[in-house]
Amino acid sequence: MKFCRLGHFVLCLSLLICMNSPLQARRRPRIVSPEVQSDRRVTFRLSAPNAQAVGLNVQFAQGTQSMTKDGDGLWQVTVGPAEPELYVYNFIVDGLRVTDPANPWLKFWGGAARNLVLVPGNPPLFFEEQSVPHGTVHVHKYPSKSLGVTRGLYVYTPPGYEENRRTKYPVLYLLHGMGDTEDTWTVVGRANLIVDNLLAKGRARPLIIVMPYGHTPSAPPDTRSLGNYGAFEKDVIHDVIPYVQKCYRVSTEKKDRAIAGLSMGGGQALTVGLGNLDLFGWLGAYSSAVPPEQSLDRLLADPKVVNDTLQLFWIGCGRSDFLFKANQNLLGRLEAETVNHVAHITDGAHEWSLWRIYLNEFVPLLFDANR
Amino acid sequence: MKFCRLGHFVLCLSLLICMNSPLQARRRPRIVSPEVQSDRRVTFRLSAPNAQAVGLNVQFAQGTQSMTKDGDGLWQVTVGPAEPELYVYNFIVDGLRVTDPANPWLKFWGGAARNLVLVPGNPPLFFEEQSVPHGTVHVHKYPSKSLGVTRGLYVYTPPGYEENRRTKYPVLYLLHGMGDTEDTWTVVGRANLIVDNLLAKGRARPLIIVMPYGHTPSAPPDTRSLGNYGAFEKDVIHDVIPYVQKCYRVSTEKKDRAIAGLSMGGGQALTVGLGNLDLFGWLGAYSSAVPPEQSLDRLLADPKVVNDTLQLFWIGCGRSDFLFKANQNLLGRLEAETVNHVAHITDGAHEWSLWRIYLNEFVPLLFDANR
Repeated sequence: MKFCRLGHFVLCLSLLICMNSPLQARRRPRIVSPEVQSDRRVTFRLSAPNAQAVGLNVQFAQGTQSMTKDGDGLWQVTVGPAEPELYVYNFIVDGLRVTDPANPWLKFWGGAARNLVLVPGNPPLFFEEQSVPHGTVHVHKYPSKSLGVTRGLYVYTPPGYEENRRTKYPVLYLLHGMGDTEDTWTVVGRANLIVDNLLAKGRARPLIIVMPYGHTPSAPPDTRSLGNYGAFEKDVIHDVIPYVQKCYRVSTEKKDRAIAGLSMGGGQALTVGLGNLDLFGWLGAYSSAVPPEQSLDRLLADPKVVNDTLQLFWIGCGRSDFLFKANQNLLGRLEAETVNHVAHITDGAHEWSLWRIYLNEFVPLLFDANR
Repeated sequence: MKFCRLGHFVLCLSLLICMNSPLQARRRPRIVSPEVQSDRRVTFRLSAPNAQAVGLNVQFAQGTQSMTKDGDGLWQVTVGPAEPELYVYNFIVDGLRVTDPANPWLKFWGGAARNLVLVPGNPPLFFEEQSVPHGTVHVHKYPSKSLGVTRGLYVYTPPGYEENRRTKYPVLYLLHGMGDTEDTWTVVGRANLIVDNLLAKGRARPLIIVMPYGHTPSAPPDTRSLGNYGAFEKDVIHDVIPYVQKCYRVSTEKKDRAIAGLSMGGGQALTVGLGNLDLFGWLGAYSSAVPPEQSLDRLLADPKVVNDTLQLFWIGCGRSDFLFKANQNLLGRLEAETVNHVAHITDGAHEWSLWRIYLNEFVPLLFDANR
């Protein structure tokens, strides 16, 4: 009888769990979904006893996969094998797209939630969590005087930052896309794990990554932020950078400050980076929403200054990207105006699988890592 | 024509958004849900054109609220007014519980996802984000040698931590419940905002809060962790505390180290705290899963040592909690054995609304804040 209180507790909590679950879940153990098999096939499960038809949309399979129901109302399907990669998926229940309630890993984009599932590689993918020292992700709320609001800010510090109390680190300001928020570069982009893995291999110089919120006005992500880069630029220059320099041991030299971004964030990186050559020594634009010609006229007014300042001007774009033409035009202009740059044209479309690769290729080029 | 590239970009991204949305969303703006009105009524919306019946379960209203559909398949209901509080809710679509895809604020518990909605107060509630200086939440992955795995760890540092580079801070180790993970005390418990607000009012001493992952084995949250506190204790003592002391400027004195937790975490706080009186000077147990009698025999073997060591032994429980009886028994035993303690018996059940209040009441008592 000594354990009766604990037994009572387990019983009551079990009841609580049942009360919180669909009826059908009472007789079965916790649902595991998704379950990645060792052969890289993936099993997806959803309890939906009243549904007429349940399907699965997953990025690695064409069309909607039909799921089958057992006697307890649990729908299931196994798909694959899939190439090692990070994929989005969702269920379709009688025509309604829903997320997987058993999977807390979610991607929010443009007001829609989808789940993520990682099919690991052997050897592990460059963005998988591996047995290496891990950096830390810091979630800040800082007061933006420029915008008159409190905004979110994610910061990555590399392994060893906390112990090496005399080291000053270089900083990469890393900007997200139009449907994203300040956490997307870590939740979906896995920037922290990518850099953990690069550092473990000695392929990059330890750096801090600052991931600000890119939308202005400070509204939910929508198209209003596009092209409205002036307010964002003020926030970065007058609020984010001083805040970071107050909170972290960072070098304040131009040679130790980089800026890069994807899509809308690529347009912002070009605008803020080229517009503030006194501050940034390294610039990356991934699949970027290239600023309009008249902005470029201003930003590229003096090619010599750009060439003398930037140690790297890196432009990446996939051939299947709907922005490929715009990026080609930008590259043509840089060529014509003899602006030094690296054109990194690859396969791929406007998607995260590419941006993870670009970050993995870009970071080792920064801050004289290999000199 | 100067803006044609940007125009093309906006057009293409708009198309992308439409392709990612239900058909019916193409003709309407982004869905806002939930929308809290100034009169504290809340409007919930879900696009589900094919559904036969859509309802809402929200914590502040009894039963399932029927939602009505417009011609575009958007279901909607307005409920309330509600008392200012943080509530969970979900939709029921033809019998299936689903989350709100427009709301990224989610609570995961025991394998089930629910959305959260905050009905703000006037004046603001103690756990609302207010115009005060904000601390930072740090997301760590640390190697647990005791458990042989890498585990997650959340740490809150108060406003000013980054600038006051000579101050050493006291630490509260704050433990979650059985269905929770290391992020629940911030995502649902709002511990960071509660302490921000206390500090802004001068009601607490600036402190660091460490929120470890409480489950062992390092499996998804389930009942296996209950009572299995020995492995957790080893992890806290031999891995978490040394890691925190390596990474943060914390005082290592017993008088500056507290431990508290809710439910399962309350049982862990009692076990780890009373079991390591050389380390902890302050102890809190909220609605706790009281350890079994034979554990208490060991933990309370020498009441004098407990009394000489703990500056605060705080036990909170709501009268409607299913663990109330167990906590009453514990209090009776402490009384009988003349162990100094504070019995904080309140209204309330086994729920987060109470644990937020308890944290708000407990933190000002710590570390001689008001002496």
